[in-house]
Amino acid sequence: MDGIQTLKKDYPWIQNPLIVGAPMRLIALADLAVEVSKAGGIGFIGAGTDVSDLDSHLHKAQDLLKSSSLATGSAILPIGIGFINWGASLSDSIPLIQKYRPAAVWFFAPSSTTSLTEWAQGTRKASPETKIWVQVGSVKEAVDALKSAKPDVLVVQGTDAGGHGLAQGASVISLVPEVSDAVDAVVKEHGGPSPVLLAAGGIVESRGVAAALALGASGIVMGTRFLACHEAVIAKGYQDEVLRASDGGQNTVRTKVYDNLRGTTGWAETHNARGVINKSYIDAVAGLDEAQNKKLYEEDMKKGDKGWGVEARMTTYAGAGVGLVREVKSAKEIVEEVRDGARAVLKWLGDGAMTGKL
Amino acid sequence: MDGIQTLKKDYPWIQNPLIVGAPMRLIALADLAVEVSKAGGIGFIGAGTDVSDLDSHLHKAQDLLKSSSLATGSAILPIGIGFINWGASLSDSIPLIQKYRPAAVWFFAPSSTTSLTEWAQGTRKASPETKIWVQVGSVKEAVDALKSAKPDVLVVQGTDAGGHGLAQGASVISLVPEVSDAVDAVVKEHGGPSPVLLAAGGIVESRGVAAALALGASGIVMGTRFLACHEAVIAKGYQDEVLRASDGGQNTVRTKVYDNLRGTTGWAETHNARGVINKSYIDAVAGLDEAQNKKLYEEDMKKGDKGWGVEARMTTYAGAGVGLVREVKSAKEIVEEVRDGARAVLKWLGDGAMTGKL
Repeated sequence: MDGIQTLKKDYPWIQNPLIVGAPMRLIALADLAVEVSKAGGIGFIGAGTDVSDLDSHLHKAQDLLKSSSLATGSAILPIGIGFINWGASLSDSIPLIQKYRPAAVWFFAPSSTTSLTEWAQGTRKASPETKIWVQVGSVKEAVDALKSAKPDVLVVQGTDAGGHGLAQGASVISLVPEVSDAVDAVVKEHGGPSPVLLAAGGIVESRGVAAALALGASGIVMGTRFLACHEAVIAKGYQDEVLRASDGGQNTVRTKVYDNLRGTTGWAETHNARGVINKSYIDAVAGLDEAQNKKLYEEDMKKGDKGWGVEARMTTYAGAGVGLVREVKSAKEIVEEVRDGARAVLKWLGDGAMTGKL
Repeated sequence: MDGIQTLKKDYPWIQNPLIVGAPMRLIALADLAVEVSKAGGIGFIGAGTDVSDLDSHLHKAQDLLKSSSLATGSAILPIGIGFINWGASLSDSIPLIQKYRPAAVWFFAPSSTTSLTEWAQGTRKASPETKIWVQVGSVKEAVDALKSAKPDVLVVQGTDAGGHGLAQGASVISLVPEVSDAVDAVVKEHGGPSPVLLAAGGIVESRGVAAALALGASGIVMGTRFLACHEAVIAKGYQDEVLRASDGGQNTVRTKVYDNLRGTTGWAETHNARGVINKSYIDAVAGLDEAQNKKLYEEDMKKGDKGWGVEARMTTYAGAGVGLVREVKSAKEIVEEVRDGARAVLKWLGDGAMTGKL
């Protein structure tokens, strides 16, 4: 509970349990980020590898937030920015961090721990109120991040997550407790404040949130769930495929195939992405030549919303929990439903333990 | 909470939250199974694919249990038997089920749903008190099992699990809620009692247990954790490697390499097994010829306990939670520590939700 109390000092508008909107590149922009924060969560703009449009997204978010009465407690902009650090330009990003003073910057997949240190130092100098969040996918990454960036928040991403992450990994069920123990050990040895742990990957609704808190997280991050929300910048074909897909362990896969087709090939060998299995993937596994597969992909790009689906070729990045996403709601409705539901599950668990029924 | 109340009628000796010892082939035999049940859990003998020694293991368990005062409420033997159904002989197994009347039979990886139906019907006829447990690794398998075997218990195994399971899969964080919803829908449509759901895969200690209950399971199964217990039939080299390994998402892997080396090659293409990465695996990935790899493996078999380790070649099947296994205890100590710890986590969660601190 210390974790969430720490966060509440920095972010006085948040409500428990904390729901964070993942910085999905191209999809989570000003509208989604602002609505998640306005609902008592923390929303992120996904800047990804390219910050050329970031100024306009932040400007829009600032405008949208002017009319809200969000208690920020300081001059910060009550949303975060998510960077994919191997691709994003540090020198272009720091001035924007200084200009907008976001509540958080979320660092992911830096080219090295040295680079991560530079991003953290640059941010702290440019905007001391901005908190440093670092996404990690293993115990080793967590310990390295702790030592190189002294993050305020560690986002611990399990392998069920949609989109990009470590190719090999554990899910949050074993990763969050082990990272929690490892972080405690490092803090005990080297001193310094403990980072707050948030869990990501496969968490789509209330039960997953309650589970994450049981594992030792102070809040959670959802990406896939927000694909089915009004404020996501997403094609209807993509969103429909998210609603259709079920049994995500069987019907999604971690692969580099989609990156190769889309030309987003700057990722390290250690990383790939989870998406719904479609014709491109099936053909790739069956041995279809990559150039030919790409040509077929580009033909499906012309089909509009019909380009998505199990018999089509556009990429549907989504997590293994995709089967639990069943309707499109507003970001506000999603945050409130998941948060209230999680609180009910927690009370039910406590009651069950107290009365010996569970 | 209905699930655990149902189980308590069948198994009056169990305590909440329910801890089950996985039927690990060759490792979980009479001593381990009996001690887990005596501690208020449910222990399983891992018969696996070969039931030729099963009579003697059951006889030993019966002997061990004679001196205990376990309240079974009926004439059942208060432990279970785990079968790997594609390999185990139905005609040899049924007479043993009839003779010993185990509390449960656990079915896993049948060659077909027809075969699963035969095992379930044969068991119910031979020993009506014996409950049918079926292990599943996807929503589809859960629904198929429900329709073909009307199981009393579904063991929902996530992909973090050690040893054998589906090659592709989700972890319990998204799988358990989705299976739970799917089971509810089938029961609503077709009638019949709801099976009790238990979660398996990556659960090693109290936090994972509390998380599993949050996800909708009525109890949990641990395998990897019981590798580090006095009653496991396990080489010291294997056990030491379990204690050494950490960061299981990075240092274990799902693969068919170990099966191929060990000659346990009857598994369907859909299944593989998770083990700690060692020299055999690294060489296989690097392209070493399988016959040569097997020869090197067989040389390491002669090294005794030194045959295990990251620089050696004996197989260390273990789950992604292996890093949370840190000491060898008795089965009783493990069951009590995990159960008491889980209850404490549940109360802490309930308190946090009630006071608004979580």
